[in-house]
Amino acid sequence: MELLKARIRKDGTVKGNDVLKVDSFLNHQMDVALFEEIGREFLRRFDGCGVNKILTIEASGIGIACVTAQSFHCPVVFAKKSQTKNIAGEVYSTQVESFTHGRVYDVIVSKKFLGPEDTVLIIDDFLANGAALEGLIDLVNQAGARLAGAGIVIEKAFQPGGERLRAKGIRVESLARVKSMSEEHGVEFVD
Amino acid sequence: MELLKARIRKDGTVKGNDVLKVDSFLNHQMDVALFEEIGREFLRRFDGCGVNKILTIEASGIGIACVTAQSFHCPVVFAKKSQTKNIAGEVYSTQVESFTHGRVYDVIVSKKFLGPEDTVLIIDDFLANGAALEGLIDLVNQAGARLAGAGIVIEKAFQPGGERLRAKGIRVESLARVKSMSEEHGVEFVD
Repeated sequence: MELLKARIRKDGTVKGNDVLKVDSFLNHQMDVALFEEIGREFLRRFDGCGVNKILTIEASGIGIACVTAQSFHCPVVFAKKSQTKNIAGEVYSTQVESFTHGRVYDVIVSKKFLGPEDTVLIIDDFLANGAALEGLIDLVNQAGARLAGAGIVIEKAFQPGGERLRAKGIRVESLARVKSMSEEHGVEFVD
Repeated sequence: MELLKARIRKDGTVKGNDVLKVDSFLNHQMDVALFEEIGREFLRRFDGCGVNKILTIEASGIGIACVTAQSFHCPVVFAKKSQTKNIAGEVYSTQVESFTHGRVYDVIVSKKFLGPEDTVLIIDDFLANGAALEGLIDLVNQAGARLAGAGIVIEKAFQPGGERLRAKGIRVESLARVKSMSEEHGVEFVD
Protein backbone atom coordinates (compact mmCIF):
# COMPACT_ATOMS: atom_id res chain seq x y z
CA MET A 1 0.00 0.00 0.00
CA GLU A 2 1.93 2.99 -1.35
CA LEU A 3 0.13 5.66 0.70
CA LEU A 4 1.09 3.84 3.88
CA LYS A 5 4.70 3.25 2.86
CA ALA A 6 5.06 6.92 1.96
CA ARG A 7 3.67 7.88 5.36
CA ILE A 8 6.08 5.53 7.16
CA ARG A 9 8.99 7.01 5.18
CA LYS A 10 7.85 10.54 6.01
CA ASP A 11 6.78 10.23 9.66
CA GLY A 12 8.27 6.98 10.95
CA THR A 13 11.42 7.04 13.06
CA VAL A 14 13.90 4.19 13.38
CA LYS A 15 15.60 3.59 16.73
CA GLY A 16 18.49 1.14 16.61
CA ASN A 17 17.88 -1.67 14.15
CA ASP A 18 14.50 -2.97 15.21
CA VAL A 19 12.31 -0.24 16.70
CA LEU A 20 10.08 1.61 14.23
CA LYS A 21 8.22 4.46 15.89
CA VAL A 22 4.98 5.33 14.10
CA ASP A 23 3.31 6.89 17.10
CA SER A 24 2.45 10.13 15.29
CA PHE A 25 -0.16 8.42 13.09
CA LEU A 26 -0.68 4.76 14.02
CA ASN A 27 -0.45 3.76 17.67
CA HIS A 28 -0.50 6.76 20.00
CA GLN A 29 -1.79 9.61 17.88
CA MET A 30 -4.06 8.02 15.28
CA ASP A 31 -4.83 9.41 11.82
CA VAL A 32 -8.33 8.10 11.23
CA ALA A 33 -8.40 9.29 7.61
CA LEU A 34 -5.42 7.00 6.98
CA PHE A 35 -7.24 4.25 8.91
CA GLU A 36 -10.16 4.60 6.44
CA GLU A 37 -7.78 3.95 3.53
CA ILE A 38 -6.28 1.01 5.41
CA GLY A 39 -9.74 -0.44 6.06
CA ARG A 40 -10.68 -0.14 2.37
CA GLU A 41 -7.44 -1.90 1.40
CA PHE A 42 -8.16 -4.77 3.82
CA LEU A 43 -11.64 -5.05 2.29
CA ARG A 44 -10.14 -5.18 -1.20
CA ARG A 45 -7.90 -8.05 -0.12
CA PHE A 46 -10.46 -10.04 1.92
CA ASP A 47 -13.65 -9.21 0.02
CA GLY A 48 -15.78 -12.30 -0.65
CA CYS A 49 -14.18 -14.28 2.21
CA GLY A 50 -17.38 -14.18 4.27
CA VAL A 51 -15.87 -12.19 7.13
CA ASN A 52 -18.55 -11.50 9.74
CA LYS A 53 -16.31 -10.58 12.67
CA ILE A 54 -13.05 -8.73 13.19
CA LEU A 55 -10.81 -9.77 16.07
CA THR A 56 -8.00 -7.66 17.48
CA ILE A 57 -6.08 -7.25 20.73
CA GLU A 58 -5.93 -4.25 23.01
CA ALA A 59 -4.85 -1.56 22.83
CA SER A 60 -3.33 -0.23 19.64
CA GLY A 61 -5.18 -2.60 17.28
CA ILE A 62 -8.61 -1.37 18.36
CA GLY A 63 -8.79 1.84 16.36
CA ILE A 64 -7.68 0.25 13.10
CA ALA A 65 -10.01 -2.70 13.69
CA CYS A 66 -13.04 -0.45 14.30
CA VAL A 67 -12.49 1.68 11.21
CA THR A 68 -11.82 -1.46 9.12
CA ALA A 69 -15.05 -3.01 10.45
CA GLN A 70 -16.97 -0.12 8.92
CA SER A 71 -15.83 -1.33 5.49
CA PHE A 72 -16.81 -4.93 6.31
CA HIS A 73 -20.10 -3.95 8.01
CA CYS A 74 -19.39 -6.28 10.90
CA PRO A 75 -18.64 -5.98 14.63
CA VAL A 76 -15.21 -5.99 16.27
CA VAL A 77 -14.21 -8.11 19.25
CA PHE A 78 -11.04 -7.17 21.06
CA ALA A 79 -9.11 -9.69 23.13
CA LYS A 80 -8.31 -8.39 26.59
CA LYS A 81 -5.08 -8.65 28.49
CA SER A 82 -6.47 -10.15 31.65
CA GLN A 83 -5.42 -8.96 35.06
CA THR A 84 -7.61 -11.35 36.98
CA LYS A 85 -7.78 -15.11 36.96
CA ASN A 86 -10.04 -16.37 34.24
CA ILE A 87 -13.50 -17.47 35.15
CA ALA A 88 -13.50 -21.09 34.00
CA GLY A 89 -15.95 -21.76 31.25
CA GLU A 90 -16.84 -18.17 30.37
CA VAL A 91 -13.85 -17.18 28.27
CA TYR A 92 -11.40 -18.54 25.75
CA SER A 93 -7.93 -17.91 27.11
CA THR A 94 -4.41 -18.05 25.75
CA GLN A 95 -1.01 -16.72 26.65
CA VAL A 96 0.94 -14.13 24.69
CA GLU A 97 4.55 -13.17 25.32
CA SER A 98 5.26 -9.48 24.90
CA PHE A 99 8.85 -8.91 23.83
CA THR A 100 8.40 -5.16 24.25
CA HIS A 101 7.29 -5.45 27.86
CA GLY A 102 9.24 -8.60 28.74
CA ARG A 103 6.30 -10.46 30.22
CA VAL A 104 3.58 -12.99 29.45
CA TYR A 105 -0.06 -11.95 29.36
CA ASP A 106 -3.20 -14.01 29.71
CA VAL A 107 -5.39 -12.92 26.84
CA ILE A 108 -9.10 -13.64 26.88
CA VAL A 109 -12.24 -13.38 24.77
CA SER A 110 -15.73 -14.04 26.08
CA LYS A 111 -17.28 -17.20 24.63
CA LYS A 112 -20.41 -15.16 23.94
CA PHE A 113 -18.69 -13.26 21.12
CA LEU A 114 -16.83 -15.91 19.13
CA GLY A 115 -18.17 -19.26 17.97
CA PRO A 116 -18.42 -21.84 15.15
CA GLU A 117 -20.77 -19.56 13.20
CA ASP A 118 -18.06 -16.90 12.77
CA THR A 119 -15.62 -16.22 9.93
CA VAL A 120 -12.93 -14.08 11.51
CA LEU A 121 -10.50 -11.53 10.13
CA ILE A 122 -7.74 -10.72 12.63
CA ILE A 123 -6.47 -7.14 12.47
CA ASP A 124 -3.37 -5.77 14.18
CA ASP A 125 -1.00 -2.86 13.78
CA PHE A 126 2.31 -4.78 13.89
CA LEU A 127 3.58 -8.27 13.13
CA ALA A 128 7.12 -9.12 14.24
CA ASN A 129 7.65 -12.28 16.27
CA GLY A 130 4.05 -13.28 15.69
CA ALA A 131 3.30 -14.01 19.34
CA ALA A 132 0.18 -11.83 19.51
CA LEU A 133 -1.12 -13.14 16.20
CA GLU A 134 -0.58 -16.77 17.22
CA GLY A 135 -2.47 -16.08 20.45
CA LEU A 136 -5.40 -14.63 18.52
CA ILE A 137 -5.39 -17.60 16.10
CA ASP A 138 -5.47 -19.91 19.11
CA LEU A 139 -8.58 -18.11 20.38
CA VAL A 140 -10.25 -18.46 16.96
CA ASN A 141 -9.44 -22.18 16.96
CA GLN A 142 -10.73 -22.69 20.49
CA ALA A 143 -14.00 -21.06 19.40
CA GLY A 144 -14.30 -23.42 16.42
CA ALA A 145 -14.56 -20.36 14.17
CA ARG A 146 -13.21 -20.16 10.63
CA LEU A 147 -10.17 -17.91 10.10
CA ALA A 148 -10.23 -15.85 6.90
CA GLY A 149 -6.73 -14.55 7.64
CA ALA A 150 -4.84 -11.73 9.25
CA GLY A 151 -4.63 -8.12 8.09
CA ILE A 152 -1.50 -6.42 9.40
CA VAL A 153 -0.58 -2.78 8.92
CA ILE A 154 3.21 -3.10 9.29
CA GLU A 155 5.12 -6.37 9.15
CA LYS A 156 8.75 -6.50 10.19
CA ALA A 157 9.58 -9.03 7.49
CA PHE A 158 13.11 -9.45 8.87
CA GLN A 159 11.59 -11.03 11.98
CA PRO A 160 10.24 -14.58 11.80
CA GLY A 161 6.52 -14.25 12.65
CA GLY A 162 5.06 -13.67 9.19
CA GLU A 163 6.94 -16.47 7.44
CA ARG A 164 6.27 -18.96 10.22
CA LEU A 165 2.51 -18.30 10.07
CA ARG A 166 2.34 -18.35 6.27
CA ALA A 167 4.20 -21.69 6.33
CA LYS A 168 1.35 -23.02 8.48
CA GLY A 169 -1.12 -22.02 5.79
CA ILE A 170 -2.40 -18.84 7.48
CA ARG A 171 -3.23 -16.08 5.04
CA VAL A 172 -1.32 -13.01 6.26
CA GLU A 173 -1.81 -9.76 4.35
CA SER A 174 0.56 -7.01 5.43
CA LEU A 175 0.13 -3.55 3.94
CA ALA A 176 3.77 -2.56 4.45
CA ARG A 177 6.51 -5.17 4.76
CA VAL A 178 9.76 -3.80 6.17
CA LYS A 179 12.79 -5.63 4.76
CA SER A 180 15.35 -3.77 6.84
CA MET A 181 15.77 -0.55 8.74
CA SER A 182 18.46 1.51 10.37
CA GLU A 183 18.91 4.97 11.83
CA GLU A 184 21.21 5.93 8.96
CA HIS A 185 19.28 4.57 5.98
CA GLY A 186 15.72 4.59 7.28
CA VAL A 187 13.21 1.97 6.24
CA GLU A 188 13.47 -0.33 3.23
CA PHE A 189 10.40 -2.28 2.17
CA VAL A 190 10.03 -5.71 0.56
CA ASP A 191 9.59 -5.24 -3.23
CA MET B 1 -29.78 9.60 22.76
CA GLU B 2 -32.80 7.33 22.41
CA LEU B 3 -31.16 4.75 20.10
CA LEU B 4 -28.45 4.19 22.71
CA LYS B 5 -30.85 4.00 25.65
CA ALA B 6 -32.97 1.46 23.75
CA ARG B 7 -29.87 -0.60 23.07
CA ILE B 8 -28.83 -0.50 26.74
CA ARG B 9 -32.33 -1.58 27.78
CA LYS B 10 -32.27 -4.42 25.23
CA ASP B 11 -28.70 -5.72 25.54
CA GLY B 12 -27.30 -4.33 28.80
CA THR B 13 -27.18 -6.54 31.89
CA VAL B 14 -27.19 -5.28 35.45
CA LYS B 15 -25.13 -7.14 38.07
CA GLY B 16 -25.82 -6.14 41.64
CA ASN B 17 -26.57 -2.42 41.96
CA ASP B 18 -23.65 -0.83 40.21
CA VAL B 19 -22.27 -3.03 37.40
CA LEU B 20 -23.78 -2.44 33.97
CA LYS B 21 -22.47 -4.92 31.43
CA VAL B 22 -22.61 -3.61 27.88
CA ASP B 23 -19.88 -5.84 26.54
CA SER B 24 -22.00 -7.16 23.66
CA PHE B 25 -21.94 -3.81 21.83
CA LEU B 26 -19.73 -1.24 23.60
CA ASN B 27 -16.57 -2.45 25.31
CA HIS B 28 -15.66 -6.00 24.33
CA GLN B 29 -17.66 -6.71 21.21
CA MET B 30 -18.13 -3.34 19.50
CA ASP B 31 -21.00 -2.36 17.21
CA VAL B 32 -19.32 0.13 14.90
CA ALA B 33 -22.60 1.10 13.23
CA LEU B 34 -23.80 2.27 16.65
CA PHE B 35 -20.45 4.01 17.16
CA GLU B 36 -21.11 5.99 13.95
CA GLU B 37 -24.42 7.22 15.39
CA ILE B 38 -22.66 8.06 18.67
CA GLY B 39 -19.98 10.00 16.79
CA ARG B 40 -22.58 12.00 14.89
CA GLU B 41 -24.37 12.82 18.16
CA PHE B 42 -21.12 14.05 19.75
CA LEU B 43 -20.54 16.23 16.67
CA ARG B 44 -24.08 17.64 16.98
CA ARG B 45 -23.35 18.60 20.59
CA PHE B 46 -19.80 19.93 20.13
CA ASP B 47 -20.02 21.34 16.60
CA GLY B 48 -18.49 24.80 16.30
CA CYS B 49 -16.32 24.36 19.42
CA GLY B 50 -13.13 24.27 17.36
CA VAL B 51 -12.21 20.69 18.32
CA ASN B 52 -9.02 19.67 16.51
CA LYS B 53 -8.05 16.68 18.65
CA ILE B 54 -9.85 13.88 20.46
CA LEU B 55 -8.29 12.45 23.60
CA THR B 56 -9.24 9.13 25.16
CA ILE B 57 -7.70 6.46 27.38
CA GLU B 58 -6.90 2.86 26.54
CA ALA B 59 -8.47 0.51 25.98
CA SER B 60 -12.24 0.61 25.63
CA GLY B 61 -12.45 4.31 24.72
CA ILE B 62 -10.30 3.93 21.61
CA GLY B 63 -12.88 2.50 19.22
CA ILE B 64 -15.53 5.10 20.06
CA ALA B 65 -12.94 7.87 19.88
CA CYS B 66 -11.70 6.79 16.44
CA VAL B 67 -15.17 6.56 14.92
CA THR B 68 -16.15 9.89 16.53
CA ALA B 69 -12.99 11.47 15.10
CA GLN B 70 -14.24 10.64 11.61
CA SER B 71 -17.15 13.01 12.21
CA PHE B 72 -14.82 15.72 13.53
CA HIS B 73 -12.15 15.15 10.83
CA CYS B 74 -9.40 15.24 13.43
CA PRO B 75 -6.85 12.81 14.91
CA VAL B 76 -7.21 10.83 18.13
CA VAL B 77 -4.61 10.60 20.87
CA PHE B 78 -5.02 7.87 23.44
CA ALA B 79 -3.46 8.12 26.87
CA LYS B 80 -1.49 5.03 27.78
CA LYS B 81 -1.46 3.18 31.05
CA SER B 82 2.27 3.16 31.58
CA GLN B 83 4.13 0.09 32.78
CA THR B 84 7.53 1.69 32.75
CA LYS B 85 8.84 4.71 34.58
CA ASN B 86 8.15 7.88 32.68
CA ILE B 87 10.93 9.42 30.71
CA ALA B 88 11.22 12.84 32.28
CA GLY B 89 10.42 15.64 29.90
CA GLU B 90 8.98 13.58 27.06
CA VAL B 91 5.49 12.89 28.39
CA TYR B 92 2.69 14.46 30.38
CA SER B 93 1.90 12.10 33.21
CA THR B 94 -0.89 11.75 35.74
CA GLN B 95 -2.27 9.10 38.05
CA VAL B 96 -5.67 7.46 37.73
CA GLU B 97 -7.25 5.18 40.31
CA SER B 98 -9.14 2.27 38.81
CA PHE B 99 -11.96 1.20 41.11
CA THR B 100 -12.64 -1.84 38.90
CA HIS B 101 -9.09 -3.13 39.14
CA GLY B 102 -8.30 -1.76 42.62
CA ARG B 103 -5.03 -0.09 41.64
CA VAL B 104 -3.49 3.19 40.56
CA TYR B 105 -2.11 3.62 37.05
CA ASP B 106 0.39 6.10 35.70
CA VAL B 107 -1.23 7.48 32.57
CA ILE B 108 0.87 9.26 29.98
CA VAL B 109 0.62 11.21 26.73
CA SER B 110 3.61 12.19 24.63
CA LYS B 111 4.24 15.93 24.63
CA LYS B 112 4.55 15.73 20.85
CA PHE B 113 0.81 15.15 20.46
CA LEU B 114 -0.84 17.64 22.80
CA GLY B 115 -0.01 21.34 23.15
CA PRO B 116 -1.29 24.92 23.53
CA GLU B 117 -2.49 24.92 19.89
CA ASP B 118 -5.04 22.17 20.59
CA THR B 119 -8.72 22.30 21.41
CA VAL B 120 -9.50 18.92 22.89
CA LEU B 121 -12.64 16.83 23.14
CA ILE B 122 -12.26 13.98 25.63
CA ILE B 123 -14.19 10.82 24.72
CA ASP B 124 -14.79 7.83 26.97
CA ASP B 125 -17.23 4.97 27.27
CA PHE B 126 -18.13 5.34 30.95
CA LEU B 127 -18.23 8.04 33.61
CA ALA B 128 -18.77 6.95 37.21
CA ASN B 129 -16.36 8.21 39.86
CA GLY B 130 -14.73 10.49 37.33
CA ALA B 131 -11.16 9.39 38.10
CA ALA B 132 -10.21 8.62 34.49
CA LEU B 133 -11.82 11.81 33.21
CA GLU B 134 -10.06 13.93 35.84
CA GLY B 135 -6.76 12.35 34.83
CA LEU B 136 -7.36 13.19 31.17
CA ILE B 137 -8.33 16.77 32.08
CA ASP B 138 -5.09 17.04 34.06
CA LEU B 139 -3.15 15.99 30.94
CA VAL B 140 -4.97 18.61 28.85
CA ASN B 141 -4.14 21.26 31.45
CA GLN B 142 -0.48 20.24 31.63
CA ALA B 143 -0.31 20.62 27.86
CA GLY B 144 -1.77 24.13 28.02
CA ALA B 145 -4.48 23.00 25.61
CA ARG B 146 -8.07 24.24 25.59
CA LEU B 147 -10.71 21.75 26.74
CA ALA B 148 -13.94 21.81 24.73
CA GLY B 149 -15.50 19.26 27.04
CA ALA B 150 -16.06 15.57 27.55
CA GLY B 151 -18.30 13.28 25.53
CA ILE B 152 -19.34 10.23 27.51
CA VAL B 153 -21.38 7.31 26.22
CA ILE B 154 -22.84 6.11 29.54
CA GLU B 155 -22.81 8.12 32.76
CA LYS B 156 -23.70 6.49 36.04
CA ALA B 157 -25.45 9.61 37.29
CA PHE B 158 -25.93 8.03 40.73
CA GLN B 159 -22.14 8.16 41.19
CA PRO B 160 -20.45 11.49 41.91
CA GLY B 161 -18.06 12.02 38.95
CA GLY B 162 -20.34 13.85 36.54
CA GLU B 163 -21.75 16.32 39.04
CA ARG B 164 -18.36 17.07 40.57
CA LEU B 165 -16.85 17.87 37.17
CA ARG B 166 -19.83 19.95 36.00
CA ALA B 167 -19.57 21.92 39.27
CA LYS B 168 -15.99 22.78 38.26
CA GLY B 169 -17.27 24.23 34.99
CA ILE B 170 -16.35 21.28 32.77
CA ARG B 171 -18.83 20.67 29.96
CA VAL B 172 -19.78 16.99 30.25
CA GLU B 173 -22.17 15.60 27.63
CA SER B 174 -23.36 12.09 28.39
CA LEU B 175 -25.51 10.29 25.82
CA ALA B 176 -27.19 8.04 28.38
CA ARG B 177 -27.41 9.01 32.05
CA VAL B 178 -28.33 6.14 34.33
CA LYS B 179 -30.36 7.29 37.34
CA SER B 180 -30.55 3.89 39.00
CA MET B 181 -30.28 0.24 38.18
CA SER B 182 -30.97 -3.13 39.71
CA GLU B 183 -31.15 -6.75 38.65
CA GLU B 184 -34.93 -6.76 39.23
CA HIS B 185 -35.91 -3.52 37.56
CA GLY B 186 -33.12 -3.03 35.04
CA VAL B 187 -31.88 0.42 34.10
CA GLU B 188 -33.67 3.70 34.70
CA PHE B 189 -32.39 6.81 32.93
CA VAL B 190 -32.38 10.47 34.04
CA ASP B 191 -35.38 12.21 32.39
